[in-house]
Order: sequence, then structure tokens, then C-alpha cells
Amino acid sequence: MPDQDSKRRPDWIAVDWGTSRLRVWAMTANGTVLAARQSEDGMSTLSSADYERVLTALVSDFLPVAEGAPMPVVVCGMAGARGGWREAGYRTVPCTLGDVGDLTRVPCRDPRLSVTILPGLRQKDAPDVMRGEETAIAGLISAENLRDGVACLPGTHSKWCRIDRGGIAEFTTVMTGELFAAIAGHTILRLSLSEGAFSETAFREGVDEGLQHPETLTARLFGLRANDLLSWVGPGVAVSRLSGLLVGAELSATRSYWADGAVHLVASDPLAEKYALAFEVAGAEFIRENAEKLTLAGLGAVYRALLEDAA
Amino acid sequence: MPDQDSKRRPDWIAVDWGTSRLRVWAMTANGTVLAARQSEDGMSTLSSADYERVLTALVSDFLPVAEGAPMPVVVCGMAGARGGWREAGYRTVPCTLGDVGDLTRVPCRDPRLSVTILPGLRQKDAPDVMRGEETAIAGLISAENLRDGVACLPGTHSKWCRIDRGGIAEFTTVMTGELFAAIAGHTILRLSLSEGAFSETAFREGVDEGLQHPETLTARLFGLRANDLLSWVGPGVAVSRLSGLLVGAELSATRSYWADGAVHLVASDPLAEKYALAFEVAGAEFIRENAEKLTLAGLGAVYRALLEDAA
Repeated sequence: MPDQDSKRRPDWIAVDWGTSRLRVWAMTANGTVLAARQSEDGMSTLSSADYERVLTALVSDFLPVAEGAPMPVVVCGMAGARGGWREAGYRTVPCTLGDVGDLTRVPCRDPRLSVTILPGLRQKDAPDVMRGEETAIAGLISAENLRDGVACLPGTHSKWCRIDRGGIAEFTTVMTGELFAAIAGHTILRLSLSEGAFSETAFREGVDEGLQHPETLTARLFGLRANDLLSWVGPGVAVSRLSGLLVGAELSATRSYWADGAVHLVASDPLAEKYALAFEVAGAEFIRENAEKLTLAGLGAVYRALLEDAA
Repeated sequence: MPDQDSKRRPDWIAVDWGTSRLRVWAMTANGTVLAARQSEDGMSTLSSADYERVLTALVSDFLPVAEGAPMPVVVCGMAGARGGWREAGYRTVPCTLGDVGDLTRVPCRDPRLSVTILPGLRQKDAPDVMRGEETAIAGLISAENLRDGVACLPGTHSKWCRIDRGGIAEFTTVMTGELFAAIAGHTILRLSLSEGAFSETAFREGVDEGLQHPETLTARLFGLRANDLLSWVGPGVAVSRLSGLLVGAELSATRSYWADGAVHLVASDPLAEKYALAFEVAGAEFIRENAEKLTLAGLGAVYRALLEDAA
């Protein structure tokens, strides 16, 4: 998105600070995006002393002159983890997402910044944690005035979340993306996963297999290697099948989430396309949602609550 | 094993040349081990031109003087793979393991060497391959005059094999060891897998979970990380649990192999101990076998067949 309106000073800055990426948006009070920027300065590359400098460098032209009121900056994601900018704690599910009493203010040296970090979510039975995705889920709940439903946010660590009476009832993390990378990059399969066009057929077969026979997943993986040694398969087939197997295994692990109603699929392409295919194979209903829009809605709700709180 | 009797010239040399390790044994005609040696010169570190030199360096003192009859060297394992010393082909299951018509002779520059490489096994339905383990299985069949049974050879790539009427009916590879290494070394779990003593309790719980709920494997993995973030668990617990989950998943994938009778567990400690625990959790019967002894029995049968063939 170009900085088409960057001459106008934003009312606040939205930040999604993940493990591998920093994304910022210059926002108006009513939720219009004036500019969007990103960098590779993810949490995994920074120490806590680096955050203020990295953020200021990315948004300096949006900041007020030294004597003006400080710019509200609302941050979700791994910046709030232990070892991030400042540890922002967790809300414990079941819970709602609207409170602002448990936000973390970050003291800054630069007087032009007023930074707030959102807490993550934690779950004690079936131990699990989430940092960042809860903000898109909050956006989904508020934007669609959702009372009940299920959200799926696929990725490195896919998050599945059950919404009940407008709050979070439970969630589950499935390491699909990270397992794919570890298997494709650090096992013998790397020798058989030639680059090539995505094969929808191989992906669908993999999903079906992973879903119907999750008990044989760790055996099916070596089959991809053997198949390559014993017969020629086209470029992209094995890698598409591996991706399908792991997404199928994810759907198998989360069947209780999607079996009984439509899933809100919160993702961007090309991941959204893949999961849409997988849901089709599984016979699961789904509704595609715009992940960025929902994250901004979630951060915007916090911005407005902070304004009211200050008033 | 010390070279206690290395003054005596062996009748033949047994070689198990794997991906990461080379093992050789100086043998008498009747199967006594005179000396055992190994090196890290596995197939993954060598090009085909290196093999003769590496082998000769390791066994030079066993070789006859230049004018004597050449020393028979019988080799199983990845040295026979494409990209190994010389491609030794595959037998296609179902098959027996006793033929010597399909062995591969390797021409050597050194006239003191007479090298033979055994073929691997391949399976066309449920594509799979094996190189090296089939020789221990042949040893098991011949040493115990086995007609029917199941062998489990755990490891980086665990092999499960169904023996029927003294031959190989089918087999399955499960990437348990390699998945463990990829997950423990190349995902976020690496931050939560502290070193520590093996926890038998955590391992058993993991096996049970992997076996009873294989459909949630890829979701349970992140639980190990979350559990570490949310509460203190002792050193070694998460790593033992991960190991248990993956061995449990292996047992889930191979249930048809072990559900109906005793499994011949062909392994060395500490892996044999772990699998023995896992079989206990699963309620599977098993018989511990000496992996090295069976490999030497399998190689010895080929040595004797070659002798007869030459006579």
C-alpha cells in the first residue's frame, strides 16, 4: 500500500509486531489507513532496548513535533512476550477481549510516543498461548458483532479459536507451518521436494489422507521420499502433497472446531487459498475474512477505549 | 570391542555402510568376530570415488599380502544407494532374502579386495525403500529359522517388517528419529527442550497420548512449548515427552504390525530400552534381539552363499 496520504498526520499508529516481521499502519481516528509499512525487524532479531529505535525509524515522519501531544501507538504481538519489548502478560481463557484495565504501558525516551501493548491469551487445561492473533479475533467479534463461532488463523503456528457469548472459550495451536519448514528443510525429504508449480491434485490428496488417516502421518512422510526414488513424479507434487498431509493433520486435530458450523478463515493469500481448498476436501463450511482489516479493527477498538478512558 | 585377535587374518570382512557411519568387522568363516571398527565416513560424506580408499585405510592390516587370494568383503547399507559406492538395486517385496544372483560386484583397483554389495528392498504399493536393515532381518530369519513374524528396527528411519513364510511380505518406514531431530532442532520447541535426565514418566505419558490420540499429534507439539511458558517443568520432561509422542505416533502408524503377536525388537541401547518401554505402554509383546549379531548373521549367509557359488 503506497503512502498515498502520508502528508496528513495520523491520529494513532497501529502495530502488529510478530516474531519475524513488524507491520505498522498510520491511522485516522475513524479507522482509515493513511499508510502501511513493514520491516523484517521481528521480535526474534531484537533485544528489548532496540524496539523504540526501530519503531521510531519506521514512523518518524508520522510523529508530532516535539511539543505536541504524544502519538498513541497500539501494539499487539510478540513485542509483548517475555524477551520482547516489554512483557505484557496474558488474559486467561475463558475471557472476553474488551478490557483495557490489563494493557501494558511502555515508558519511552522519545516524548512523542505513547505506547500501549496488548496482553496475549493463555489456556491452562490443554496448555496453550497466543500473542497477536487474539487481536484479529477481537476485531472479528466486534466487526461482525459475533456471539458464537469459530475462527481459524492459519500460519507458522495455526490458531483455532472457539468464540462463545462474545468471548474466547478455548483455543488450540497447531504447528503446521513450522513443521512443514522443519521437515522440508531438515530431513531427507529435502532431497525429494523439488521446486515446482503447486499441484492442487496432490495437495487435495494429501489433505484427504491426513484427515482420514492421521494415525499414519509419520509413516506417510517417508513415502514421499520413496515415491521419488522409485518413480518419477512431477516437480511440485511431493511438496504439495506434504503441505496437504500437514494441513489435513491440522484439520484432523481440530475436527471439534469445524465439524458443526462455518469457520471464519482469517488469512491472506496464498495461505487463504490453500485452507479454502482443504476445507472443501473436508466438507467444512467457511467464511473468508480479511486478516489485516480484522487486526486493525481489534487495535482500533483498543485505541478508542483508551481515548474514552482518558476522557 | 578391542582388536583382541587382530593378529589372525580374517576369512572375510563384514561391512555395514550407513548414511552417517561405517562399521566393519573382521570375521572368521564360521562367524567369529576377530575385530570390530567404525568411522564417521558415512555415505552422506563420500563421493563414489572415495569408498575404496576409506575402506582400505580402515582394514589394511587385515588384507592379504599382494599375491594372496583377495579378501571377500560383503557390504550392506547405503553404500549401495544411487550416489553411493555403486548402485546395488532393489529386491521388490514380497520376496525372499536368500538369493545371491542379484548381488553387485564392485570392481576395485586394489587386487586384495573382492567387494560385493547387497541390494536393498523396495515396495511399490505404499511406496517404500530400505537399505541395510534388510540384512539384519535376513539374519533374524536365518538365525531363528523364522517363518512368520514382525521385526521392528527403530532409528532415524524406523523400519517395520512383516515376515511371511520366511520372506518379506511388506514393510513400513516411520521417520521417528529424524522428525525428533528436526522438531527439537529447528522449531520453537528448541527453546523449551532443556537438557536433563530422561523422564520415564513423561516418556510413557507421551507414548500413551501419541498412541491414543494420533489425530492431535501436530497440536500436542505446541503444548510442550506452552507448558514451558506457563509453568515450570523439570529439565528433561519436555524432551522425554516429545520423544514419547513421536514413538507413540509410530506405534499408532504400525498398529497392524504389532497388534496380533510378538515383535522382534532389533535395536541397541538406549533405543532398545525406549522402545521396550513404549511396547509396555502399548501392551505389545516383544522379543529383544541383538542388532549387530543379526546384521553379521545376514552378511555371513551371503559370504557362505558366495563361497558355495564359487565352488
